[in-house]
Amino acid sequence: MRIAIVTTGGTIAKTYDEADGLLKNERPVIKTLVGALRLPDLAIDFSHLMQKDSLELTDDDRRRILAEVEALAPRRDGLLVIHGTDTLEHTGALIHESLPELAVPVVLTGAMRPYEFRDSDAQQNVTEALLAATLVPPGVYAAMHGRVLRFPGVTKDRQALTFVKREAG
Amino acid sequence: MRIAIVTTGGTIAKTYDEADGLLKNERPVIKTLVGALRLPDLAIDFSHLMQKDSLELTDDDRRRILAEVEALAPRRDGLLVIHGTDTLEHTGALIHESLPELAVPVVLTGAMRPYEFRDSDAQQNVTEALLAATLVPPGVYAAMHGRVLRFPGVTKDRQALTFVKREAG
Amino acid sequence: MRIAIVTTGGTIAKTYDEADGLLKNERPVIKTLVGALRLPDLAIDFSHLMQKDSLELTDDDRRRILAEVEALAPRRDGLLVIHGTDTLEHTGALIHESLPELAVPVVLTGAMRPYEFRDSDAQQNVTEALLAATLVPPGVYAAMHGRVLRFPGVTKDRQALTFVKREAG
Amino acid sequence: MRIAIVTTGGTIAKTYDEADGLLKNERPVIKTLVGALRLPDLAIDFSHLMQKDSLELTDDDRRRILAEVEALAPRRDGLLVIHGTDTLEHTGALIHESLPELAVPVVLTGAMRPYEFRDSDAQQNVTEALLAATLVPPGVYAAMHGRVLRFPGVTKDRQALTFVKREAG
Repeated sequence: MRIAIVTTGGTIAKTYDEADGLLKNERPVIKTLVGALRLPDLAIDFSHLMQKDSLELTDDDRRRILAEVEALAPRRDGLLVIHGTDTLEHTGALIHESLPELAVPVVLTGAMRPYEFRDSDAQQNVTEALLAATLVPPGVYAAMHGRVLRFPGVTKDRQALTFVKREAG
Repeated sequence: MRIAIVTTGGTIAKTYDEADGLLKNERPVIKTLVGALRLPDLAIDFSHLMQKDSLELTDDDRRRILAEVEALAPRRDGLLVIHGTDTLEHTGALIHESLPELAVPVVLTGAMRPYEFRDSDAQQNVTEALLAATLVPPGVYAAMHGRVLRFPGVTKDRQALTFVKREAG
Repeated sequence: MRIAIVTTGGTIAKTYDEADGLLKNERPVIKTLVGALRLPDLAIDFSHLMQKDSLELTDDDRRRILAEVEALAPRRDGLLVIHGTDTLEHTGALIHESLPELAVPVVLTGAMRPYEFRDSDAQQNVTEALLAATLVPPGVYAAMHGRVLRFPGVTKDRQALTFVKREAG
Repeated sequence: MRIAIVTTGGTIAKTYDEADGLLKNERPVIKTLVGALRLPDLAIDFSHLMQKDSLELTDDDRRRILAEVEALAPRRDGLLVIHGTDTLEHTGALIHESLPELAVPVVLTGAMRPYEFRDSDAQQNVTEALLAATLVPPGVYAAMHGRVLRFPGVTKDRQALTFVKREAG
């Protein structure tokens, strides 16, 4: 199977700058993370779109992500979008609304704790997102913490620090 | 969701004895492994059946595993069986043949490299098996290395050191 | 041998807050770090004085550290002070000047990268500081990155991100 | 400072063979281990002499180790010998007796648990051995578990699984 991973930055890819003591989005970490997994069936390619905290993503950034998903989807069996958790729900909703005819799963994931930390949830979440991309029907999803949630209606629970389905009103 | 994890030993649970320099099946490691994952939707209980290299499992051992799966399945939404890879296919085939009316997924998994090693595949495989247990229809499966393979016909590829579906003859 | 470890905060003890994405000095990490070492000869006790970035240490804080070192030294075979690297040289100089009659080694150490990171230098530095405390003559030292530097004249090299001896002028 | 590291195998360098499930001395691990340390003052070169469980070292093997130490010592500031713990005391005693005029420290170390394990003592022991090589006077030593023990009289405590000084009789 052919999977493309689109990176946009986010907490998962924050790295520590020893000179000033700050966490920054300066480089993707996903190739290292995926390189540690055993995935004999998957041919994975990477599209490093941007390195941003998701709170700083502009409408234009989101349109670039959408365009990349649209461009890659026809030649892949599934897509991952690595994204900051703070606005993941907006990007997922945009893809869901804009691409109703998607023929493959598009799975958004990220982490609550940067990959560089010993007890990061990054490896779990990317493992789950990759497996979900091979198992679920076409559509837009958020995968994290043992959950695979289908858009629309996915939102971040800021108390529990994970994603949930919004209650229908 | 309620998940039960049945442990039987296997490579995944081999631990190092510093006094004699040998790897041994002396205690399960799965609670430590699962404790490092974030799984807010899963209520997991553990059934530590036996601590054996799977090459040493007897017919009687396999009947005990089958009986445990049969006993637990009605009160769970999914089951994991942690198992050595060398004879995982025999235990999976026995469960598949003996319990055709299973109402939940039973997912067998293990590891090629013990959990205690830095670069073990144990965490990946258990993460995948747990997610598969929440996504796939009732039946018996092996989950490992990005694959979720349904019985019958699952076998270990001893060259590639992973599981595959046997070619129909 | 009896060793006391005085903690003051610093980069080594910065931990990640998932709710706001910030690194903070909220709790010491040294007991976890030392608990992973094998030190059959050492009886270690901990004195958690404060949790501060060392740029925020006041003169009063430094006097508290000095008082703690003075109080603990007579009943120990060596002392460690876990400290932020930005002002470690000032605290070390103060102890050196104020306690010229020290009968045991006082070794200051910390890290350029917080202990919670996979590739932190924290474990190396604390391992070195503990060994130095058992090997060097009484006096005040900074131990880090394979170096054990005796005060006075120790300073942080902000280019190389490590400690060096200041050139005599 | 120039340090040479002579590798001979031992528990520290046992690696796991996934095809047969056995621990074997097939390749040195020390370059990876040392590569993770920050040692700006040390220029380290490696001499991979042999890959053996130390119980299998012959008299001839020990003579080769001795010859290598004798050849390297004049052009280095210190030497490490990475060695299995079971017969480390014999190799150390041989170097001590054969080279009474050593001008630099020769520090033997190893591990009770292979480096590839998550909770190995390998990194601690090598960190300590390297620091000891920069701090102690010329002579032959075993460094491990917070102890730097000078030959003669060093022996493995097979109950405590560490090295101690033999009581004078």
